[in-house]
Amino acid sequence: MLDATLSRIDSEMEQNLNRLFDFLKIKSISTDPEFEKDCAEAADWLVADLKSFGAKVEKYETGGHPLVLGDLGSDSGPHILFYGHYDVQPVDPLELWDNDPFEPIIEKLPSGSVIRARGSSDDKGQLMTFVEACRVWIAQNGSLPFKVTFFFEGEEESGSPNLVPFMKKYKKEISSDIVLICDTWLFESRVPSIVTMLRGILKEEIIITGPDKDLHSGMYGGISTNPARLLTNVLSAMHDKDGTITIPGFYDGVSELSQNIKDQWESLNFKHDQFLSEVGLSIPAGEKGRSPLEMIWSRPTCEINGIKSGYINEGFKTVLPSQASAKISFRLVGSQDPFKIRKSFRKMIQNLVPIDCTVTFLEHEASKASQMDTSSPEFEKAREAISEEWGIEAAFVGCGGSIPIAGHFQQITGVDPILIGFAKDDDQIHSPNEKYDLESFRKGIRSWVRVINSFSELQNV
Amino acid sequence: MLDATLSRIDSEMEQNLNRLFDFLKIKSISTDPEFEKDCAEAADWLVADLKSFGAKVEKYETGGHPLVLGDLGSDSGPHILFYGHYDVQPVDPLELWDNDPFEPIIEKLPSGSVIRARGSSDDKGQLMTFVEACRVWIAQNGSLPFKVTFFFEGEEESGSPNLVPFMKKYKKEISSDIVLICDTWLFESRVPSIVTMLRGILKEEIIITGPDKDLHSGMYGGISTNPARLLTNVLSAMHDKDGTITIPGFYDGVSELSQNIKDQWESLNFKHDQFLSEVGLSIPAGEKGRSPLEMIWSRPTCEINGIKSGYINEGFKTVLPSQASAKISFRLVGSQDPFKIRKSFRKMIQNLVPIDCTVTFLEHEASKASQMDTSSPEFEKAREAISEEWGIEAAFVGCGGSIPIAGHFQQITGVDPILIGFAKDDDQIHSPNEKYDLESFRKGIRSWVRVINSFSELQNV
Repeated sequence: MLDATLSRIDSEMEQNLNRLFDFLKIKSISTDPEFEKDCAEAADWLVADLKSFGAKVEKYETGGHPLVLGDLGSDSGPHILFYGHYDVQPVDPLELWDNDPFEPIIEKLPSGSVIRARGSSDDKGQLMTFVEACRVWIAQNGSLPFKVTFFFEGEEESGSPNLVPFMKKYKKEISSDIVLICDTWLFESRVPSIVTMLRGILKEEIIITGPDKDLHSGMYGGISTNPARLLTNVLSAMHDKDGTITIPGFYDGVSELSQNIKDQWESLNFKHDQFLSEVGLSIPAGEKGRSPLEMIWSRPTCEINGIKSGYINEGFKTVLPSQASAKISFRLVGSQDPFKIRKSFRKMIQNLVPIDCTVTFLEHEASKASQMDTSSPEFEKAREAISEEWGIEAAFVGCGGSIPIAGHFQQITGVDPILIGFAKDDDQIHSPNEKYDLESFRKGIRSWVRVINSFSELQNV
Repeated sequence: MLDATLSRIDSEMEQNLNRLFDFLKIKSISTDPEFEKDCAEAADWLVADLKSFGAKVEKYETGGHPLVLGDLGSDSGPHILFYGHYDVQPVDPLELWDNDPFEPIIEKLPSGSVIRARGSSDDKGQLMTFVEACRVWIAQNGSLPFKVTFFFEGEEESGSPNLVPFMKKYKKEISSDIVLICDTWLFESRVPSIVTMLRGILKEEIIITGPDKDLHSGMYGGISTNPARLLTNVLSAMHDKDGTITIPGFYDGVSELSQNIKDQWESLNFKHDQFLSEVGLSIPAGEKGRSPLEMIWSRPTCEINGIKSGYINEGFKTVLPSQASAKISFRLVGSQDPFKIRKSFRKMIQNLVPIDCTVTFLEHEASKASQMDTSSPEFEKAREAISEEWGIEAAFVGCGGSIPIAGHFQQITGVDPILIGFAKDDDQIHSPNEKYDLESFRKGIRSWVRVINSFSELQNV
């Protein structure tokens, strides 16, 4: 029965791909108001597609982009919720794309075929692995062995401003026994993994204003505070020479790894030199005395995501700028409190800026790190299922990024989500030429079919 | 004899103004090709006007806008050259002008009457102060007491691309004993001044490349070098906490002020708090232990004119940028060598960047500071003459910006120019509603008559 379902996936790949391509063509960039209609269109597309195999789903309006929510299946067995997001990152710089980001193509590479399009990997392609798994299961077996709730968001790439209020309002509808999330990757593009540690995030934006207009750097240079210089001073003060973050109280709540996790990670034999060389680097740049996996999974960071001041176009203008701004994000671990850190960060910046200048702080996302309790049986069931599909023992791993939705489920419905994904390190998510391996898509669908199958053996948990 | 000439200026102000108004009506905007004919017309107007009182002048074609060159007077006494420019800045945004920029008017303000028009202050009005001085001198006294060469440029506002080649080609014609330039201002709109120190400039642009593409700051944050952070470190390392520039050898060639100049500047009683409050600041931000006037006139600076990295638009993108770039300019003084500093700066930056990152340096302008030797008798003569006219002791002052023509004369004809001008701080040059005080125009003409008179006492220098 399982084998027949798995075979059917392979033989119906053309239809699976056609659906994904239709979905990928929708320009659902959530950060840019210009694409508001496209986001609504992506939600509508999902509603129609889920309805086509019997789900009772609806589009829910929010203050921003809509959410899609609904369910399918019987009340026997555990109740599963699956989360994904239909919105995608902006595409700029567009000139670095080799093809139109919203005209998906299959590209044959020496390493195998890939689906090339914005959102192919993050997260439309991954989202569809689960949708296709449900569709093929029903086609082959008549119905799902338990109730599945679909929960799709359209603001994941823009800080999810409407998500938590929605989850609180529809707490009953989104409550479940198990939560599955497909927005992660294979460890080293090879080992199937369940992410059980997620860094949290705090995003801060600062605008320093010095003189009240742009000045001539000849007339005013030297005597007038230059906010660009002030910005570089302020930002460079945030790390000491060992890469330690200097914000007072920043490391409160950061604990050392358990020996068990330390051993597991050691055994993964992480090739950090290869990881870095793939992006043109060679020297691990994080805190002194920390292993590369710690640097990306279990240690907090402070990164500058954008800085801007003065004249930035071609040529030269000897302007002494009036303003300088920066976007800074912190990856958080353990029980670090983003709100305490925000306060301490802002106080530190304020103290570094002279009294005749002003700093404006813009508020962005803030979320704590998440850690899953892997002793629940569904974690082991899922691990076995994906190990089977990929022919490699699956691992419980950490994740440097933040997937805030994981923490929201922990806080609102009390469930530790199971994060399984099939993206590869070179998928170039958030960059030009994003892709998703055809293998990830096909084996991703097959993985979920195996997970559904193994969960059908679980009693109502 | 001098008094009669000065009185004649006052009684003939209407004619003086009529000529200036005719000149101001010509739309000689040099940066905009649309006004090419207007620039030629302005040159023709000058040729005709100078010929009307006996000068032998000609319009010289260049690759760009023409130059006007010629002379007048006897060979006895010192040979004087006077430089000015007939081209003006563009007028946009036009909607911010209260009247047509090329329809000059006299406007009565509480502080006195002003001539309102584009170019009234920069530089047609200033240029005409000298022309009128020659005209009235001849009318009153029959002939000038020495030879005067007129040298008028039409590309000062567009980078003077044809000036240096022309000066080299016509070196004989532009060689003189004394050079006068009228393109500067009264100190604090009040004190007659001779600019004797002009800062030089070195412009540098750096691009730091870390990872070979933009990365996800969750996946790569911590372990990967962030070029934006690197840039802030590198730039903030360029000053120590006292505001001293740390580039090795940077201060070579910077000397302390002579006691004489120090005393003069002290007596100017510079209101730095007002200077700063006009741009929304209050604290002098330059090197510790330096006076505000030193900061803007006699100390070198290092200013960031532009920085850019990562995501700089609205919203947030947790990108770990591949590149970070900055435009940096240095104001140079004394005998600082821009090429030695460029080399040292680049070496310092290179040393601060890890070996798995690269730095690209883009080359821009580099020019030494100009310092005039005020011990030549004509400087003191000129200073006395303008002190007399304005009833205030004139000062030898510095200028934070660069006036490239001054250096060109030093290098090509070996003469330290005498920079005298009558503009005021609120003349709004390069901005809408440019004006020139009627007082600046009238006392400007009178000042030059006094200078001519005092120079007539000089032996051939």
